[in-house]
Amino acid sequence: MDQDETMMGMALDEARSALAEGYLPVGAVLASDGTLLGRGRKGMESNHLDHAEMVVFRQVFSGDYRYTRADPISLYTTLEPCIMCWGTLRHLPIRRLVYAMSDPYGGCAAAEVTPTPPRHLSRPLEVIAGVRQREARELFRRFLDTTTESFWINGGASEFVAQVRCD
Amino acid sequence: MDQDETMMGMALDEARSALAEGYLPVGAVLASDGTLLGRGRKGMESNHLDHAEMVVFRQVFSGDYRYTRADPISLYTTLEPCIMCWGTLRHLPIRRLVYAMSDPYGGCAAAEVTPTPPRHLSRPLEVIAGVRQREARELFRRFLDTTTESFWINGGASEFVAQVRCD
Repeated sequence: MDQDETMMGMALDEARSALAEGYLPVGAVLASDGTLLGRGRKGMESNHLDHAEMVVFRQVFSGDYRYTRADPISLYTTLEPCIMCWGTLRHLPIRRLVYAMSDPYGGCAAAEVTPTPPRHLSRPLEVIAGVRQREARELFRRFLDTTTESFWINGGASEFVAQVRCD
Repeated sequence: MDQDETMMGMALDEARSALAEGYLPVGAVLASDGTLLGRGRKGMESNHLDHAEMVVFRQVFSGDYRYTRADPISLYTTLEPCIMCWGTLRHLPIRRLVYAMSDPYGGCAAAEVTPTPPRHLSRPLEVIAGVRQREARELFRRFLDTTTESFWINGGASEFVAQVRCD
């Protein structure tokens, strides 16, 4: 198992904990060249601020942190980031994004801001998609089969749901 | 004074408090049709998570908040939002962005995400720029004249600094 798969395993463990608590199984991990910096999971219903990525960002980048873009920091997450998490990762000194399952409803991994402000012209982001996707998808399928959240019951994020259900 | 100018006055008050504490004078306010929902200010050096906008977002949108896009919620901020604050405001049920001073270094107010995910095709954001800009610029000028933060002393965000110094 390579380093990305190993770190994604920790994100999947976080996602399983979220699922056990009844939440969308998103887990996220920050690592610097294989060294774990922090881990988090979704701890609320949808459409809130405490996405897994934001939880781990606050863990690692609170206070006077010392990381810079010279550090090889990667974000691992079981689901392609939304616009909030993506915007925040572009703000922070994170150079790589590795995710398991794509989100054709709100995912922004492939997005660019246009016009691109000068600050972001020299901040490339390497994106690796589909790492351990099958396991992540199975967790999302179990969530959708069991959730009582009205957002999902009422047909929310239909493009994402179709992606999870597609075999 | 119209409603936008009045609400921006509160954001400017927050910015003055940030400046008094030695921080970049960014203040932010959330309001729903003239009713104040929350207010925040920058409380750290640059390049951190606790931007004024994020502080007020966490005040107003923590826990099981009841706001939806049917509510006429506006964000007022003394500086054009960065990519993190802009991404988060696009995630939240905020329909209007009103700011004082533009940021040609990292400001994203005019930005779009391309390609645009389906979630964001039906979420227009009204943007009003330049409200009480002169007062905001004067605060930024005072900050730049007095700051001891290495980021600014070393020439950081030069496009923004030029905008503040431009008469």
